[in-house]
Amino acid sequence: MTKLKNDLFLRACKGKSVEYTPTWIMRQAGRYLPEYRAIRKKADFITMCKTPELAAEVTIQPVDLIGVDAAIIFSDILVIPEAMGMRLEMIESKGPKLYNPIRSMDDVNKLKEIDPTKDLKYVLDAVSLTKRELNGRVPLIGFAGSPWTLMTYMVEGGGSKSFSEIKKFIYNKPKAAHMLLDKIADSVADYLSAKIEAGANAVQIFDTWGGLLSPADFEEFSLAYIQKVISQIKRKDEPVIVFAKGVHYKLNKLANCGADVIGLDWTMELGKVRSKIGNKVALQGNLDPTVLYGDNDKIKKEAIKVLKSFGKHNGHIFNLGHGILPDVPPENAKYLVDVVKEESKKFHVK
Amino acid sequence: MTKLKNDLFLRACKGKSVEYTPTWIMRQAGRYLPEYRAIRKKADFITMCKTPELAAEVTIQPVDLIGVDAAIIFSDILVIPEAMGMRLEMIESKGPKLYNPIRSMDDVNKLKEIDPTKDLKYVLDAVSLTKRELNGRVPLIGFAGSPWTLMTYMVEGGGSKSFSEIKKFIYNKPKAAHMLLDKIADSVADYLSAKIEAGANAVQIFDTWGGLLSPADFEEFSLAYIQKVISQIKRKDEPVIVFAKGVHYKLNKLANCGADVIGLDWTMELGKVRSKIGNKVALQGNLDPTVLYGDNDKIKKEAIKVLKSFGKHNGHIFNLGHGILPDVPPENAKYLVDVVKEESKKFHVK
Repeated sequence: MTKLKNDLFLRACKGKSVEYTPTWIMRQAGRYLPEYRAIRKKADFITMCKTPELAAEVTIQPVDLIGVDAAIIFSDILVIPEAMGMRLEMIESKGPKLYNPIRSMDDVNKLKEIDPTKDLKYVLDAVSLTKRELNGRVPLIGFAGSPWTLMTYMVEGGGSKSFSEIKKFIYNKPKAAHMLLDKIADSVADYLSAKIEAGANAVQIFDTWGGLLSPADFEEFSLAYIQKVISQIKRKDEPVIVFAKGVHYKLNKLANCGADVIGLDWTMELGKVRSKIGNKVALQGNLDPTVLYGDNDKIKKEAIKVLKSFGKHNGHIFNLGHGILPDVPPENAKYLVDVVKEESKKFHVK
Repeated sequence: MTKLKNDLFLRACKGKSVEYTPTWIMRQAGRYLPEYRAIRKKADFITMCKTPELAAEVTIQPVDLIGVDAAIIFSDILVIPEAMGMRLEMIESKGPKLYNPIRSMDDVNKLKEIDPTKDLKYVLDAVSLTKRELNGRVPLIGFAGSPWTLMTYMVEGGGSKSFSEIKKFIYNKPKAAHMLLDKIADSVADYLSAKIEAGANAVQIFDTWGGLLSPADFEEFSLAYIQKVISQIKRKDEPVIVFAKGVHYKLNKLANCGADVIGLDWTMELGKVRSKIGNKVALQGNLDPTVLYGDNDKIKKEAIKVLKSFGKHNGHIFNLGHGILPDVPPENAKYLVDVVKEESKKFHVK
């Protein structure tokens, strides 16, 4: 195995000392990069996910172009529902569509258990290929959606504004909901284990829709299954990151779910969260993604604010509080990474 | 002036003792009611807003049909941008559109200062007419959008998913943004003062998009102007409610902004918020609106949870944590109001 030349990200995940705060950016392999759009022109989104060469290429682009301290494998959280038997389509400028959404216990029973080494071999191949091509430059992150977030898509049949179908499902068919969450949790755990086996140095669980739930519902329908996933992942020392957007409540419980790192959106103050939950987990985040619409002065000022809020401690991975937006100028993303590298050194003086 | 037969809502807003916890429901005059849809069939949304007889009729419907303890005048927050000179259209199943969105200081300068007694006379007429027809049964609430929320619509030109235009505007043209917020704040204050003069017993400021902002930006671009509005409203004893969706941070500052009541969304726990900010304001909320998709047992259980979370104190107005959804069965809304009336009595025993 190639030794990592830059392991700052992994050290920060474990709360160890670093020379500067490592940065990666959610959706860093994405539409804001002209180099990404050039490939996207030749292949549709799902084809890109399913072609290891293309996935590896766009995964590595931000390492070369933006200078991030970690790569995250290009893929989509909905490959799991597809592998479980649902038909997936990405509709241009509209978003994902899952046909025949799940609405009953019968629908749940029809979903198959996945074997990632067969059903999602293309992702594992992309991970191995990317690792080879990265050649130890930076760590590679694998990811999956949380059971709650995947179930939301599977029941809504795609994105939603009011999320009425998923709420009807959990309130009126709680048994089927728990059965489905359980089934998804097993698939997610197997999938993340296989990604680590294929070479991922860390994994992130995206709970994009956790914040839709009331605090009690979040514990019952989301957190419990994130815990289940984490407890089942086969790993050595690979860190697990949980990003639960909008989950400003239950931070203490989230910090105790087994994750090494909690990702925070931009509505939370890192310093306040840190003093609330202590040092038991590292924190990842959390610049408002729209700050990258500003000029360099604004970006620098706001990046320093985030660093200051966290303070002179170990255990911070710099990131945006949500995915980078498609119309952000790439030079602004690069400037952010540069500025964090430079300015964060002051926060890591021995 | 007709004496109010049911003033529980006003007493609760002031933290006074009540026999039971009063309830009203955001968007209670809305599409979930077949009686509303019958009128909406005959007139489009904007015509309904501009015809006092129709506005009064749908405002009173939930008082008769659902049994709420307060009415809220049927209208829309975007009547202010329209009165300031923007062309407004409601596009069926798509939402509001404001033509020629604001993008520069020039655009801001072109907006006119409103005189509510002329430019928004139709709303004031609707308020007076509704008051007459309510004949003291329950109090009548007037409302407006917060300056930040109105500016968001005015700059985006309608709703948005990424809110990139408004963020570009505040980060790259902060002077124009503050000028616009100032101008809107004056209009909102004049408008709410005129509504009180016309007979509104209370007013609510909706900061629907406050939660898009980082904590520091929320203070600078939203809270400061909510404070300005409240300080300028001409009122005697009429309570002011601020509902800032997603603003889980800065609750202490929000509680000190001059409002009598803070409305909370369903991701916050009333009891926790109360013990954090104390008794200086009443709290309104905050049942997850999707609970109304559940059966009676579920609705009752969750309503009691909200009552228990607030506890045996004065100063609670029961409401949903956001607007009622259009596909909720009206009988579920009625059941909720009945159950709160009955169950909350135990929380108000002397």
